[in-house]
Amino acid sequence: MIDFQSILTSINEAVIHEKDKGKIADYIPELAKIDINNFGIHLIDSQQENYAAGNSDEQFSIQSISKVLSLSMVLGLIGEKVWKRVDVEPSGDPFNHLSLLELENGIPRNPLINPGAIVIADILVSQLENPKEEFLAFVQNIANDYTIDYDKEVAKSEKRTGFMNFAAANLLKSYDNLNNDVDVVLDFYFHQCSLSMSCAQLTHIFYMFMNHGKCRRNKAYLTLSQVKRINAIMLTCGFYDEAGEFAFEVGLPGKSGVGGGIVALLPNKFCVATWSPGLNPKGNSKLGMLALEKLTTQTELSIF
Amino acid sequence: MIDFQSILTSINEAVIHEKDKGKIADYIPELAKIDINNFGIHLIDSQQENYAAGNSDEQFSIQSISKVLSLSMVLGLIGEKVWKRVDVEPSGDPFNHLSLLELENGIPRNPLINPGAIVIADILVSQLENPKEEFLAFVQNIANDYTIDYDKEVAKSEKRTGFMNFAAANLLKSYDNLNNDVDVVLDFYFHQCSLSMSCAQLTHIFYMFMNHGKCRRNKAYLTLSQVKRINAIMLTCGFYDEAGEFAFEVGLPGKSGVGGGIVALLPNKFCVATWSPGLNPKGNSKLGMLALEKLTTQTELSIF
Amino acid sequence: MIDFQSILTSINEAVIHEKDKGKIADYIPELAKIDINNFGIHLIDSQQENYAAGNSDEQFSIQSISKVLSLSMVLGLIGEKVWKRVDVEPSGDPFNHLSLLELENGIPRNPLINPGAIVIADILVSQLENPKEEFLAFVQNIANDYTIDYDKEVAKSEKRTGFMNFAAANLLKSYDNLNNDVDVVLDFYFHQCSLSMSCAQLTHIFYMFMNHGKCRRNKAYLTLSQVKRINAIMLTCGFYDEAGEFAFEVGLPGKSGVGGGIVALLPNKFCVATWSPGLNPKGNSKLGMLALEKLTTQTELSIF
Amino acid sequence: MIDFQSILTSINEAVIHEKDKGKIADYIPELAKIDINNFGIHLIDSQQENYAAGNSDEQFSIQSISKVLSLSMVLGLIGEKVWKRVDVEPSGDPFNHLSLLELENGIPRNPLINPGAIVIADILVSQLENPKEEFLAFVQNIANDYTIDYDKEVAKSEKRTGFMNFAAANLLKSYDNLNNDVDVVLDFYFHQCSLSMSCAQLTHIFYMFMNHGKCRRNKAYLTLSQVKRINAIMLTCGFYDEAGEFAFEVGLPGKSGVGGGIVALLPNKFCVATWSPGLNPKGNSKLGMLALEKLTTQTELSIF
Repeated sequence: MIDFQSILTSINEAVIHEKDKGKIADYIPELAKIDINNFGIHLIDSQQENYAAGNSDEQFSIQSISKVLSLSMVLGLIGEKVWKRVDVEPSGDPFNHLSLLELENGIPRNPLINPGAIVIADILVSQLENPKEEFLAFVQNIANDYTIDYDKEVAKSEKRTGFMNFAAANLLKSYDNLNNDVDVVLDFYFHQCSLSMSCAQLTHIFYMFMNHGKCRRNKAYLTLSQVKRINAIMLTCGFYDEAGEFAFEVGLPGKSGVGGGIVALLPNKFCVATWSPGLNPKGNSKLGMLALEKLTTQTELSIF
Repeated sequence: MIDFQSILTSINEAVIHEKDKGKIADYIPELAKIDINNFGIHLIDSQQENYAAGNSDEQFSIQSISKVLSLSMVLGLIGEKVWKRVDVEPSGDPFNHLSLLELENGIPRNPLINPGAIVIADILVSQLENPKEEFLAFVQNIANDYTIDYDKEVAKSEKRTGFMNFAAANLLKSYDNLNNDVDVVLDFYFHQCSLSMSCAQLTHIFYMFMNHGKCRRNKAYLTLSQVKRINAIMLTCGFYDEAGEFAFEVGLPGKSGVGGGIVALLPNKFCVATWSPGLNPKGNSKLGMLALEKLTTQTELSIF
Repeated sequence: MIDFQSILTSINEAVIHEKDKGKIADYIPELAKIDINNFGIHLIDSQQENYAAGNSDEQFSIQSISKVLSLSMVLGLIGEKVWKRVDVEPSGDPFNHLSLLELENGIPRNPLINPGAIVIADILVSQLENPKEEFLAFVQNIANDYTIDYDKEVAKSEKRTGFMNFAAANLLKSYDNLNNDVDVVLDFYFHQCSLSMSCAQLTHIFYMFMNHGKCRRNKAYLTLSQVKRINAIMLTCGFYDEAGEFAFEVGLPGKSGVGGGIVALLPNKFCVATWSPGLNPKGNSKLGMLALEKLTTQTELSIF
Repeated sequence: MIDFQSILTSINEAVIHEKDKGKIADYIPELAKIDINNFGIHLIDSQQENYAAGNSDEQFSIQSISKVLSLSMVLGLIGEKVWKRVDVEPSGDPFNHLSLLELENGIPRNPLINPGAIVIADILVSQLENPKEEFLAFVQNIANDYTIDYDKEVAKSEKRTGFMNFAAANLLKSYDNLNNDVDVVLDFYFHQCSLSMSCAQLTHIFYMFMNHGKCRRNKAYLTLSQVKRINAIMLTCGFYDEAGEFAFEVGLPGKSGVGGGIVALLPNKFCVATWSPGLNPKGNSKLGMLALEKLTTQTELSIF
């Protein structure tokens, strides 16, 4: 029997004394204000026992982590048809690089890079009557937590400065792989990325990816086959051009965001989330990566 | 309890009636002669029980599958220092593409693409007195099978036609990431790729990757941590630019070769090898991919 | 003494009987309507003698040819400072490719590819009070022809469909190389491209590039040094990824547009414009290229 | 009447006092030994009058300048058929970059980049009985100077260290665009590049490119049409990724080499060569570029 609590406590102790805590993403003013000394970690196991250390209840902007949630909602709505518009291969490129999108004739390499997530957002805009409200309700329901909300200041801020995303959306449009107006799709996309959550809340949602698609109240949101595929995509594509490194060092499916959050999971065993706003040069949380390495080293638990 | 034997039998029945069996790699004359109707599958479980169907004892050229074995030998010899000369990220490119090599200043993206495997071969040439003999002995020992051998005709044939590999090796040399003569390194590399094995023999070797680094006679060749890392690299980089697809459809760490072989494994559970010489457009065995999809669908076993 | 008139007449005879007249650009509906059998040619020599054949007085959309005119206006306004924001190297890429823009950190390769021309348009928007009016006046003054005008339908049409240009402008913005709003810059840019002119009118404007920067009324718009530089840029960058071919086959500085126009010139000798709406696969007028090859072959006049 | 002599004298005075003389190419040991303070310039006009200043009679390694000469010999031997194996477009890439070669399916972008020149060398190896002897005789005959010779030490040195060229040749071979053995072709290529000449000797050869293909003794080596095409290629492709800049600043067809030589010409007017071994970051002679800028500024002579 693994003593998760003492492991999390010792990890917290270890990482908060690291000198180099990375660099906060400063292109979104709201993110730039956060104290770099924050660190939190929360773990939920298959018995729904919860373990935590540090600032695990403080909310932060989940950013790209939301891409897994929008992909899940789309899979529930249109199923495998989504793969006609986006591929499942790792890109080998930084998160906002546009050239591979072109090479593949308008089909983004996978749904966890920005151009792919924008295509996913476009599908939701087409499928839903009130995309922002319905997506939020989808997330709240999985979490069974109706306090979760968008951070409208963050969304507005990204809208003002997200020129790379406007470039990607227009490029997709030029390839006929975006059905709605660029502005409408990106308004939804920026809201989706602005979701605020704590480590605890993140694990309460991603619990379903370790639990065959069923949330904590045992309601099924995805089939087992869909969950396995999303886990596979997280493993191969979840960490920008550091996905190989994360699989190698940590060995769990997971997803990071530039807000400093990381969520990861071991099927049938546990789901864990970390948060620390300082990023490494690849755009992933520095202390978060370190904490998850320590977790899988100490528990000897990984999918490999 | 899963009845592996009847599953393999039914898979064999199903795939041999497929009309489209892919296309045999014709750039190596020796491979071009093989009958496209061949199909074999062999599985060994954690109890060392063996199951098989089709031409599972016929030998074929393992080609790129050998890259996992040379990497394993190097890890045993010099440990983690190898990662200074080769990275662990998926390349997102076809198997013999050179441009990403350049982008990264002479550091190949991972050890399972050709330029990466050539660097690994260079390390073995530096470390071993008789590289060809000692590498063969390493492989035979793991397998506990001293009949395994190089196919010298295949090796000679590749030497005559492997201009892309000569290009890659010279490019590495120009970046100072190749210490020995191009001709010496490639002579070893072409021999390594020419190893002939059956599906059964392949699983007898790759058994150690599902068994914490220990071979069937319980001798340790790799540490648990090293095995996990190799499994992670196989998952993210083992299938050229179809690695994401394989993780998504099959969900097992594995490696393919242009000779039509594929080997894959589920840690602590089983190791499986398939062989069918017809390839899909990405360079992976068409029937082999199909067979492994069926295997993980029917058994519901995958790392995800 | 060269008999330009009979040469133009014979060229017109020859090219209108070509079977393969290329393919009309169909992404702008207004261009798609044009009759592919149109061909016109007009030449003005250093003595201001005019020669013509075919539909040389019919107006067409000059499209990318306008990039030379906006560059000229910017050089007059801010001089060599423009080269801090755009380079002068051939791109080796199709006209709307984005990747090289990225490689160079937001500095477009030259002012005659779309991203470069968008930067030039941005400068005009910053420098002028009423950009559209003042740019039109600039062009009319050089031509001494106040009937020249924008085609508002074409401009509107491009605004609706020019997603690749919106992508390029947003990418420039993300690199801080666009000072004004994307929509404002592109509105100006699409108008600039929509200018309607005949072959005759084009030569009356480009006369200044063969006449040391002075228009037909001898007013100087550019210094000799500036003219030489613009001619050099036209030669190396004026024909998308067919610039080398044009220099090789024709040997004159020039610029083409997807409306089917081409203008070219021999310093101190003549300026010539052709129009035929069918394009070759590289985006240049098929009959126009052929006509200019014949012209320089028959006259033995070229800069080389 | 232009006083070339006093212009050359004043240019020599000006440039030798430049503080930043660039950096000597150090990858060929023989080149690394040269004194960076060397500067020479030689000009021959259409009347065969000669003007010179500085170390204009000192010999240096002409390196890539030789690519124009091998191309000329090939055009004489097989004519326009050469364009089936090499294109005429600027590459937009550094001189030894391989990726564009791949994009174009084995057809190098132009004959003045390394892979293109290697294809040209391959043609000469196929066409000639004693390639090295016959090519040298071809050059000596044009120059009417039988002292010109290869520098065997330089050739040997490049053979030992030219891994990028071995990579390029093997890549061409893999695309079936190299008919002879890599070693044989490169042995010829390295000799060709090792030709030693002075500025004076260079102008005596390149005189034919300003004189309709005829050498100083009025013997025709190329047709007028072939000369024009080679001049066009020099203008668009003669200076690596600085070709646009050279056309823009100097405005003459020309070719540079990493030995520090540059040769340029104005059809019917003059041919000029400079030498100074310090290179700018693009691989072109720093003082040579500066000297030629001054020459065309002061004489107001350029093709534009």
